[in-house]
Amino acid sequence: MADDDARRLDDLFHLYQSETDRLLGYPCTATFDYSPLYRFLAFPLNNLGDPSKSNNTRLQTHELEREVLAMFGEFTHAPPDSFWGYVTSGGSEGNQYGTFLARELYPDGIVYHSEDTHYSVKKIIHALRVRSVLIRSLPNGTMDLADFAAKIKLHRDQPPIIFANIGTTMKGAIDDLAGIHAILKQHEVSKFYIHADAALSGMILPFVDDAPAWNFAAPVDSISISGHKMIGCPFPCGVVLARKPNVDRITSQVEYTGSLDTTITGSRNALGPLFLWYALRTIGVAGFRSRIRGCLEVADYACEQLNAIGRNAWRHRHSNTVVFDRPSNEMVRKWQLAVTGNIAHVMTMPQTTRERIDLFVADLKG
Amino acid sequence: MADDDARRLDDLFHLYQSETDRLLGYPCTATFDYSPLYRFLAFPLNNLGDPSKSNNTRLQTHELEREVLAMFGEFTHAPPDSFWGYVTSGGSEGNQYGTFLARELYPDGIVYHSEDTHYSVKKIIHALRVRSVLIRSLPNGTMDLADFAAKIKLHRDQPPIIFANIGTTMKGAIDDLAGIHAILKQHEVSKFYIHADAALSGMILPFVDDAPAWNFAAPVDSISISGHKMIGCPFPCGVVLARKPNVDRITSQVEYTGSLDTTITGSRNALGPLFLWYALRTIGVAGFRSRIRGCLEVADYACEQLNAIGRNAWRHRHSNTVVFDRPSNEMVRKWQLAVTGNIAHVMTMPQTTRERIDLFVADLKG
Repeated sequence: MADDDARRLDDLFHLYQSETDRLLGYPCTATFDYSPLYRFLAFPLNNLGDPSKSNNTRLQTHELEREVLAMFGEFTHAPPDSFWGYVTSGGSEGNQYGTFLARELYPDGIVYHSEDTHYSVKKIIHALRVRSVLIRSLPNGTMDLADFAAKIKLHRDQPPIIFANIGTTMKGAIDDLAGIHAILKQHEVSKFYIHADAALSGMILPFVDDAPAWNFAAPVDSISISGHKMIGCPFPCGVVLARKPNVDRITSQVEYTGSLDTTITGSRNALGPLFLWYALRTIGVAGFRSRIRGCLEVADYACEQLNAIGRNAWRHRHSNTVVFDRPSNEMVRKWQLAVTGNIAHVMTMPQTTRERIDLFVADLKG
Repeated sequence: MADDDARRLDDLFHLYQSETDRLLGYPCTATFDYSPLYRFLAFPLNNLGDPSKSNNTRLQTHELEREVLAMFGEFTHAPPDSFWGYVTSGGSEGNQYGTFLARELYPDGIVYHSEDTHYSVKKIIHALRVRSVLIRSLPNGTMDLADFAAKIKLHRDQPPIIFANIGTTMKGAIDDLAGIHAILKQHEVSKFYIHADAALSGMILPFVDDAPAWNFAAPVDSISISGHKMIGCPFPCGVVLARKPNVDRITSQVEYTGSLDTTITGSRNALGPLFLWYALRTIGVAGFRSRIRGCLEVADYACEQLNAIGRNAWRHRHSNTVVFDRPSNEMVRKWQLAVTGNIAHVMTMPQTTRERIDLFVADLKG
């Protein structure tokens, strides 16, 4: 490598070191160490196709992928032996898959999603050419169920595809699935589909007591969870899980059109399953329970400290997203905060110590 | 890590070592060494959004990504300062992006693709809800232009979106772009779009003499090239390039609907640009010229040796895909061959030495 290039890589490495210390607004765990796996980067690995089917390739991690999916199946109360899934390139692909599956089941279905839904969902809806209805959000970030009921009434003839937020991006709000089910029942809607976008909270709620309805027991039809958020990973990844009978119903059609293979992409990153498997095996359920407890305690501490300087901080129960009044653009840039309108948030991830909150609050106070 | 888990990882590592030696049917370079980059796997990197736009995050490789795109811009004769692109999760995402862009420009457009097109394209067409017309292939794997002309004539009122293969998956065939342009002109079709799927050959043709028309000079409107194939990478990646005026034309609409951000996924793997940048900088154009020459020489050698035992081997000019009579399923499995109908192929990649061909041919002879 040329000296100049080597120097640039060194500079980049040092930049990442210092910036990781001030990463407050993005929900990425940064306390991982995957160095025992680096040796696997010597091979051209590729998890081509469906992890539940075998093929001729052997440079893959399909077996570990199936074990990762089984663990997520337990986290999400998926019906044993009756769910299907794969490790995705991130939460968006999982949301795309859930919406795609719903559209295949209900070609004339209408996607209902709230104003607080991540912007990438509009992109998915547009790409899949599916109709959608926007539902108002309440100030706390959850879907306004009165508006949902009114709009369901208007479009009762088309099957609703409900895109539910299990932890919104900005406020960590969880849509009321029990309320959604009650409205569907009240309006005698028998054909419907619920996809849960549980990007971050899908790795929080399995490890807290008294979680609200959010998973296959709620019930929902599919769930997307990110791997690089609460678990942590040097590249984006995630899992999508869906009820197997639904996947089976579309498989024959998919095979007929020749567009077989139930995943969205063809070639898939085999390091995702490997890294997730390693993290889940080494951290374990007890480890995640303790990690989540720590994050929520620091979230409470952040609320206190921010409120002590009059910043109107708050958080949802079971959420490490601390919402507060938007600070200056300089602070937003310096601490890599996410903002929208008049609010900002900090995410208390495993690397977010009380000391880091203190530094941030002192800087904010000026 | 538990002893059992550590042992499983060791077993997997040794399996990959031995299987890499017998990887003959898949177009993956396996002779890479990215160990100087492993230290970057300590950070939660993420190339969120459009590489040409800045955002608040600093744990990203957007700058290296822009340099990778500039290098691919030269390889593909893209109009300087007038193309746009990003590093994808693989060839499929690039094909999806090209087809999506074409559909946005021509909402009623019809995708034309040949029988030899990769099966994932049918999946893309289905997902994007776009009409398509299947064109017959010639026995050599290229699109049958007589059939193309007949079908263009039938659907002259809808803009054609031509999905051109620049190196088909099974036979390495390159569709005749000059012929396609001539037919469009002859039928006075002024509104059309051509996407080039140059997954493998997009990193071959820039480094040979007398390449046929295949790139932006052909001209085409967008190109997808894989990064993990001829360059080599431990995870799938690629680039997609498109004419900037076309991307700009859809951007305002995309922003209006709120589905802004011109890439398909939101979070993107930042290691892809880093690894590709490193490979391109360390191997260089002269290195790739020499690599390609070596692969094509071994391809000739493989043809000779396979024909010496009566296996009807052949290859297209500028292609390292050696097609021959399908052997037994045991051989297909042992050497990880790709097969379809009565044919199989071996790909002569940088790790495919004459000695490896000899071993394979001896095994085939039995």
